[in-house]
Amino acid sequence: MEERLKKQLDFALEIDKEKNVFRQTHLSGHGRNENDAEHAWHMAVMAYLLREYANEKIDITKVMLMCLIHDIVEIEAGDTYAYDVENQKTQKAREDAAKEKLYSLLPADQKQELTALFDEFEACQTAEAQYAHAMDNLQPLLLNNSNDGGDWREHQVTAEQVYSRQTKTRLGSEKLYEVTDQIIQEHIKKGNLK
Amino acid sequence: MEERLKKQLDFALEIDKEKNVFRQTHLSGHGRNENDAEHAWHMAVMAYLLREYANEKIDITKVMLMCLIHDIVEIEAGDTYAYDVENQKTQKAREDAAKEKLYSLLPADQKQELTALFDEFEACQTAEAQYAHAMDNLQPLLLNNSNDGGDWREHQVTAEQVYSRQTKTRLGSEKLYEVTDQIIQEHIKKGNLK
Repeated sequence: MEERLKKQLDFALEIDKEKNVFRQTHLSGHGRNENDAEHAWHMAVMAYLLREYANEKIDITKVMLMCLIHDIVEIEAGDTYAYDVENQKTQKAREDAAKEKLYSLLPADQKQELTALFDEFEACQTAEAQYAHAMDNLQPLLLNNSNDGGDWREHQVTAEQVYSRQTKTRLGSEKLYEVTDQIIQEHIKKGNLK
Repeated sequence: MEERLKKQLDFALEIDKEKNVFRQTHLSGHGRNENDAEHAWHMAVMAYLLREYANEKIDITKVMLMCLIHDIVEIEAGDTYAYDVENQKTQKAREDAAKEKLYSLLPADQKQELTALFDEFEACQTAEAQYAHAMDNLQPLLLNNSNDGGDWREHQVTAEQVYSRQTKTRLGSEKLYEVTDQIIQEHIKKGNLK
């Protein structure tokens, strides 16, 4: 087998491990914890279905790809919960090392391409990255809302923390931020968010 | 909330259930059974990374979307194992009913669009559908290969059955079919395929 194809298939097999990286979010129906691969799949489908609500014109292929790959680094770096202040201090260093290690399995051109796409997502400056972040926030919010805010209650998350995270949703989609805001307000009333 | 957005979010929540549809394939490292959402995510990433090997010029956005949605019907219809002849007899009827039920949650235009995309995948006539089918076959093959052919041994699958299924891989990508053929031949030698 050619070296290039071998590298691509080695990477394809390596990322299978993303299915073993579990998040704090629970599946709807008060299910088990969700893993990163499922989360990425769900985000990518939602990104396509809801693209009409993006604040700016977006390249939907790029967005879907960003959604699909944005958590691959967590195979090495582990999941960092959105409201875990302590682990967030080391998150960037852990993810940078993971990025170098994992994407180096690919041929150089694809390593460069996917690394750049991940960096663009993280920087959250382009319309695509901002809309992808809106999905990264909306997807677990939908699940958590369907489970009566159980994930927030479990971690005693505050409304302030949720609003802080959701500023990125607003950058990507004012419309989806409106929905987000409604959901958060309902959970404050119900006492699920302090 | 507007009716259109409500429908889109209801669909987004409904498809969360795809994460509970388990397949016969096992994750690498002799892991647990894989679910449909993970499989779809993996296929979509592989489709992008390996697109240079498609037999014909393809619209990669369409392929990725096909990969992401092709198993949504299994939320209602259940997974039908590739080598389960008995259940395959009722597969089309079960999946058609599921398609109507699930996609009806969406606004009419998106129901029409995603239904057409699913039908195109199933018909396997276009370059995009054929390449997506190559991914649908190659992804579990990679996992099963990494697990010493355990899924084939467990179900006493024959080489003839595997080759029959892999004809669709060849329609999508001669190059990836070559790799597939090498892998199958190795497993015949090892006695993992009868």
